Amino acid sequence: MAKKIHITVWNEGRHEKTNETIKKIYPDGMHGAIAKYLKTHKDFEVRTATLDEPDHGLTDDVLKETDVLTWWGHMAHGDVRDDIVDKVCARVLEGMGLIVLHSGHYSKPFRKLMGTTCSLKWREMGEKERIWVLEPGHPVVAGIGEYIEIEHEEMYGERFDIPAPDTLVLVSWFAGGEVFRSGCCYHRSKGKIFYFRPGHESYRTYYHEGVLKIIANACRWAAPVAGPDVYCGHYKPLEKVETA
Amino acid sequence: MAKKIHITVWNEGRHEKTNETIKKIYPDGMHGAIAKYLKTHKDFEVRTATLDEPDHGLTDDVLKETDVLTWWGHMAHGDVRDDIVDKVCARVLEGMGLIVLHSGHYSKPFRKLMGTTCSLKWREMGEKERIWVLEPGHPVVAGIGEYIEIEHEEMYGERFDIPAPDTLVLVSWFAGGEVFRSGCCYHRSKGKIFYFRPGHESYRTYYHEGVLKIIANACRWAAPVAGPDVYCGHYKPLEKVETA
Amino acid sequence: MAKKIHITVWNEGRHEKTNETIKKIYPDGMHGAIAKYLKTHKDFEVRTATLDEPDHGLTDDVLKETDVLTWWGHMAHGDVRDDIVDKVCARVLEGMGLIVLHSGHYSKPFRKLMGTTCSLKWREMGEKERIWVLEPGHPVVAGIGEYIEIEHEEMYGERFDIPAPDTLVLVSWFAGGEVFRSGCCYHRSKGKIFYFRPGHESYRTYYHEGVLKIIANACRWAAPVAGPDVYCGHYKPLEKVETA
Amino acid sequence: MAKKIHITVWNEGRHEKTNETIKKIYPDGMHGAIAKYLKTHKDFEVRTATLDEPDHGLTDDVLKETDVLTWWGHMAHGDVRDDIVDKVCARVLEGMGLIVLHSGHYSKPFRKLMGTTCSLKWREMGEKERIWVLEPGHPVVAGIGEYIEIEHEEMYGERFDIPAPDTLVLVSWFAGGEVFRSGCCYHRSKGKIFYFRPGHESYRTYYHEGVLKIIANACRWAAPVAGPDVYCGHYKPLEKVETA
Repeated sequence: MAKKIHITVWNEGRHEKTNETIKKIYPDGMHGAIAKYLKTHKDFEVRTATLDEPDHGLTDDVLKETDVLTWWGHMAHGDVRDDIVDKVCARVLEGMGLIVLHSGHYSKPFRKLMGTTCSLKWREMGEKERIWVLEPGHPVVAGIGEYIEIEHEEMYGERFDIPAPDTLVLVSWFAGGEVFRSGCCYHRSKGKIFYFRPGHESYRTYYHEGVLKIIANACRWAAPVAGPDVYCGHYKPLEKVETA
Repeated sequence: MAKKIHITVWNEGRHEKTNETIKKIYPDGMHGAIAKYLKTHKDFEVRTATLDEPDHGLTDDVLKETDVLTWWGHMAHGDVRDDIVDKVCARVLEGMGLIVLHSGHYSKPFRKLMGTTCSLKWREMGEKERIWVLEPGHPVVAGIGEYIEIEHEEMYGERFDIPAPDTLVLVSWFAGGEVFRSGCCYHRSKGKIFYFRPGHESYRTYYHEGVLKIIANACRWAAPVAGPDVYCGHYKPLEKVETA
Repeated sequence: MAKKIHITVWNEGRHEKTNETIKKIYPDGMHGAIAKYLKTHKDFEVRTATLDEPDHGLTDDVLKETDVLTWWGHMAHGDVRDDIVDKVCARVLEGMGLIVLHSGHYSKPFRKLMGTTCSLKWREMGEKERIWVLEPGHPVVAGIGEYIEIEHEEMYGERFDIPAPDTLVLVSWFAGGEVFRSGCCYHRSKGKIFYFRPGHESYRTYYHEGVLKIIANACRWAAPVAGPDVYCGHYKPLEKVETA
Repeated sequence: MAKKIHITVWNEGRHEKTNETIKKIYPDGMHGAIAKYLKTHKDFEVRTATLDEPDHGLTDDVLKETDVLTWWGHMAHGDVRDDIVDKVCARVLEGMGLIVLHSGHYSKPFRKLMGTTCSLKWREMGEKERIWVLEPGHPVVAGIGEYIEIEHEEMYGERFDIPAPDTLVLVSWFAGGEVFRSGCCYHRSKGKIFYFRPGHESYRTYYHEGVLKIIANACRWAAPVAGPDVYCGHYKPLEKVETA
């Protein structure tokens, strides 16, 4: 039997604690909703972790055992400890997949891995978002139609200050007149990163089947590959070298 | 159980018929050597097809049932019927994976799909080739070391006249002083294409474990994905449109 | 003084002949409107050519002298002679820039150079298009704001069946609910190609300052570079090679 | 007359002070050799700056006036002040070009902008390097042949831990058996970055005409473009939005 993919669904988890409306929408937190869906897949082994746990739930052991980490954060990006951020980034470069969700665009790990500001335009009016598939042959859109529609979402608009994705899979249309690169694939060292736009805390986005499917697909795409161990440093010649 | 990947190993198969030396190296043809290896994988269903079969072995039924097609051609590119080439290309755009091997760089389907001349420098001296991995997190290099070495190969050198690959996974070093983009990934419509350099007919390249592993990995990477059916043509508005 | 960029503005020119409404909008043809603007730039030397001239106005001499060719076609793609198409493509691969405008997406040269179907969704309702800049540091958007707005345009929607652009500079939003990759840069051999979406014949798009500016910028970006002459074919080793 | 490109040639400048052999090769420092060449171009306005000047010679005014910054560092990466690094990176994102030379691959600004380790294999034996052009139509190779050869250089080998370049223009061959991505173009926010491999301090690389030409070309390519000012933050809808 194939090895399972070990997923850690990370969530800041503060909105759900401090805001009654959000708590009602996500009584088990957004991480709970995402994890519940992912657990229905036999090839996944799923756990959750949140900001307010010791070490944000991301101990060395947890990170080591994690094949793919999903990340949602917003109001408390600044509370994430820098040493944990460094460990998360190091694990990504080592091969761990990272799925960055919605406002995670401004999280410390994503910004550090991208090297740009990752800023954007935004507006919270609950307008319609339609996410179009640009690459119908990409594994993250398996089982998806030509677009998915989300009745009410926060708007994110370009210019999204990211490096051009290695593969741009999804672009959003917003009722208010903007577009956004919503599904962005990156290779960084041995790791893979997928940024996926939707998921404002005040809407029911993480119950949307299309959204959940894409997250599950992205976890499979981003799972580590048994590629070569990379050696860096001084290196002896593989061939006879003549020098003066 | 997961659906098997149906692979058709296509070979021109002329060198093996007309040249005693080649026949000795590949008594069952290069397609035979490749297919034999691929058949050792339980997730693959493998058949072969060659130029001199009716319809080059690529009838509509065969193409329809093929998830991934591997292509080796050289001395008889011109003998491949244009109607078959059109069908192969159409199937790729529909989602069939295509693994183009060595001198297949100059085959009709590859050139048509690339839109460039696909020409290059070459030299047959049996020199050493060392293929370096640039993207250690890419699935086509699973189980491979930092490089693979082929003791005797034909040289291919840059400028290789192809569109820049969507992902460049491998680059070759040649003893005579050249470099070459040896492992090139492309998305084209719903299909995926992998160009893989090694495999001159007069060497034992298709018995090389590293080479074979990469071909097998590439077949998995290029296998079709159940992405959206794409509609093209006149399209009604999804939103109310006000015009003058 | 720097060498001028020789631009040939090519137009099918049929709508302007056969349709009174179009003739009124573009009394000198769309090529006339574009050329008039380009001629206001001192670094450009501009001529026009149309389908109904001998050799479509694209004789060997004209092509040889052309640094950048802009291409508009629609109702008569099929009337473009294949030998001329081959010459245009060959010149692009040799280094000539190609700016493909609007319905030129389905022209013979563009489809041949892309290797895909280049099909898309479309709708003619005269709805609003807003073209967003994704790469604010790219030379084709010099002098442009964050977006340009076109009050009335034909809609083109994704999935646009093209290879992922080397650089995606612009994405359109349409009132009816679609998005589209509107500014796409490609390197093909020594040539550069820019696909630019707007320009339906029944609107005044080629009088829009932002649209014209982008076309001018694209001409500069796509102008040939004195890069190396590429040799292809048999090649002697540059280093001493030991073989068995 | 066209606006001049203001170039600041930055150099750590320590090897030239502390090592007699290096001092002999570059009596005016490597920055001196590079600046001397760049000054022969009428479209450039060139100054130099070094680590041991106040603020490393990179005051706010200097950075503000700099269109393109070239960066060479090696033994003293750690001595570069973090606040200056932050300012350099911010200026790049604002539009300033950055040409990173040789061991600058491990400089603080480059690593921060890339988000990866930027590590590699290396060996100092004075072996031959041959740098091949992959993209003959790219402006950084104007006036260059199919390759440039450097008789004696330090080896850098893959896996070079960088994000895949937006455009890969050059790949090196080394006598000892390695390959390396030697000319790498990146867009980051409004800025452009070019990594260019050659230039070990103990060889006469910055007197090599081909190397110098590529640096000059890269300065032109990386010069700022008058693209849109990007607004980030809360954004009012451009269209009437209906929400529940």
